[in-house]
Amino acid sequence: MPGPLEGIQILSFCTALSGPFCTMILGDMGAEVIKIETIGEGDRTRNSSHKINGVGTYFLSVNRGKKSITLNLKEESAKAIVFDLVKQVDVLTENFRPGVMKRLGFDYETLSKINPRLVYASISGFGQTGPFSHKPAYDMIAQGMGGVVSITGLEEPGTPHVRVGYSIGDMAAGMFAAIGIQAALLGREKTGEGQWVDVSMLDSQVALCENAIVRYFATGEIPKPQGSRHPLSTPFQVYDTKDKPLIVVANSEKLWGNFCRAAEKEEWIADERYKTRDLRLANYPKFNQEMSALMRTRTYEDWVNRFETHEVMYAPVNNIEEVTQHPQVLARNMISEVEHPVAGKHKIVNSPIKFSKTPARVEKAAPELGANTHEILSRKLGMSDTDIEKLKKANII
Amino acid sequence: MPGPLEGIQILSFCTALSGPFCTMILGDMGAEVIKIETIGEGDRTRNSSHKINGVGTYFLSVNRGKKSITLNLKEESAKAIVFDLVKQVDVLTENFRPGVMKRLGFDYETLSKINPRLVYASISGFGQTGPFSHKPAYDMIAQGMGGVVSITGLEEPGTPHVRVGYSIGDMAAGMFAAIGIQAALLGREKTGEGQWVDVSMLDSQVALCENAIVRYFATGEIPKPQGSRHPLSTPFQVYDTKDKPLIVVANSEKLWGNFCRAAEKEEWIADERYKTRDLRLANYPKFNQEMSALMRTRTYEDWVNRFETHEVMYAPVNNIEEVTQHPQVLARNMISEVEHPVAGKHKIVNSPIKFSKTPARVEKAAPELGANTHEILSRKLGMSDTDIEKLKKANII
Repeated sequence: MPGPLEGIQILSFCTALSGPFCTMILGDMGAEVIKIETIGEGDRTRNSSHKINGVGTYFLSVNRGKKSITLNLKEESAKAIVFDLVKQVDVLTENFRPGVMKRLGFDYETLSKINPRLVYASISGFGQTGPFSHKPAYDMIAQGMGGVVSITGLEEPGTPHVRVGYSIGDMAAGMFAAIGIQAALLGREKTGEGQWVDVSMLDSQVALCENAIVRYFATGEIPKPQGSRHPLSTPFQVYDTKDKPLIVVANSEKLWGNFCRAAEKEEWIADERYKTRDLRLANYPKFNQEMSALMRTRTYEDWVNRFETHEVMYAPVNNIEEVTQHPQVLARNMISEVEHPVAGKHKIVNSPIKFSKTPARVEKAAPELGANTHEILSRKLGMSDTDIEKLKKANII
Repeated sequence: MPGPLEGIQILSFCTALSGPFCTMILGDMGAEVIKIETIGEGDRTRNSSHKINGVGTYFLSVNRGKKSITLNLKEESAKAIVFDLVKQVDVLTENFRPGVMKRLGFDYETLSKINPRLVYASISGFGQTGPFSHKPAYDMIAQGMGGVVSITGLEEPGTPHVRVGYSIGDMAAGMFAAIGIQAALLGREKTGEGQWVDVSMLDSQVALCENAIVRYFATGEIPKPQGSRHPLSTPFQVYDTKDKPLIVVANSEKLWGNFCRAAEKEEWIADERYKTRDLRLANYPKFNQEMSALMRTRTYEDWVNRFETHEVMYAPVNNIEEVTQHPQVLARNMISEVEHPVAGKHKIVNSPIKFSKTPARVEKAAPELGANTHEILSRKLGMSDTDIEKLKKANII
């Protein structure tokens, strides 16, 4: 059964993470993703640190199932190939700095004349408009400017800043772009026309900070890092037990009652300092001191048995190895194995979107550089082997 | 100009964050979101800490522009209203624990018989299948079990765990669900049929940990928290200057050369320990010690002037107040003001997806509880005022 996006063709000028993560999501759901790469080097993440047989794991992960065509975009005949492909595809994605596509001759205005049905998605650090539009940004720039670094980390003033451990600055923009592209495709069903979708890494971070931002507007207080706890709910954080860390979530009054019974601290249920979520928050320093001391009196296993009996939400802090071996992660087929001509068989992460009728699929590895150049020129543009050979000799493909 | 999803109708059984964040994204792009709420209390986030005139900011933020209908789902005549609405809508979203919708009589099998075109999206902690399927999860459970807590935080062993400062455990699942719903709608254009989309908070976290997971599979080393630095690139982190923190991104060889010139440390360009990204990573402890000492020798402003001249990527660590006042954030209209009957005029965050022809819009506030009950029953189901009054008196709506 093909994926829900079977038949959708995407031409991708993207490198690194934000754009490739976007087209990876769409490709897993059945879209055909044609990745345009520079001759010789290609996407720079092919050469990232941590390799399998010389192939960067970074590249292998987010480019699975895509097709690679190499083009020397300085050459007019390579540009002509892009124009011919644009006539056929549904979507174009690019994550250059604003202005680069125009210099290449591939701006939305030009390409939409060639294909008015084209959905053209630009992902950039700051967006296509505004005073910072021309500036470059990588993940850490978006994380730092967008606010998440200011609300992540230890509560104690003066402790060093930390970033979110995965590249959410890039990936969030990729996800919002995937959402915008599909919305534009749905809109096209009615209007017959494509449009330009403009997503920035900074805007995407601002969108994810929505709760902190509305709290700031409502109270005037600037949200701060709060360790592992939730700003509006408690207990809802990691506690040390006698042996290992344990996440306790007992923030509703029902769950709090369950926790107090599990902990044999029934007196806290009616305690004037702790009986409601708002009171526990208002009295947090004392509350947390007492909770921390209490949690350290028993082992992880002892607490878990009590929480199972009394229906308290809990979880371990899994490391990455534990994540990949977790029975639920395995039952959901979240780890896929694919085979690459050079890297060989290797494991990557599957799509988290499960469809009942048209499943997403992660079955093919990332392409070798230019692996599909011949196939695409021949099948999509009807070029002869002789023509393709000529382009190769002229260093155009 | 209406949004790209104008005409798409969504019936939402969602509370708190994952589901409401999903339908918020789709609603901002023009979909009509009908939120079914319990009589009396409604979505529990209406009562979250931090309120404006008694209305929770949490609720106001992620429910802007939606319609609220109250239904007492224990009553057969309320269920009949749901069945009648299901006949008309394109999408149903729910974020109950697996099994709850079936107990209500609203499982996919039943509803797809009433409306075979229905796209039915379930968001849950662990998904509709697997040994953990029945377990509940809030954001912190997904963050802890999904791996991000294990790779976020300070590098020094023994330092406390921290969570990502925004609720990415919920929001990532909401975003993947929005992607899956739209893919299913696009698939429906070809098949004429809807389907069941099943997204879990845990799977969504695993998907975002892709880079850490493939690194683990390739090397056998379990990724650890690394403070503010990137696991594969350096310098790419926050440094203290003489006065305030500054993010430096100079990880490519070109940017590294620019940084060395800006810092008047040209000797580092050819330094055998630091001249490539892989060398800087391999020699990180010594490298970081020298970088940290160097960065502290000048003020933020001095560094920024040098980085502007020499084209080094940099950024401040903005707090939430600074984010809301940033000229780029304002130029991109990322802050919207809406008016609520009780909370009055208040500011919320706009959609980060910018469409050239059918802009997303954040113009209306979140609804009061049941604000649209009469409108929906009258306009969509053709009920008379008398019928609606009867249902009200019987405590059914």
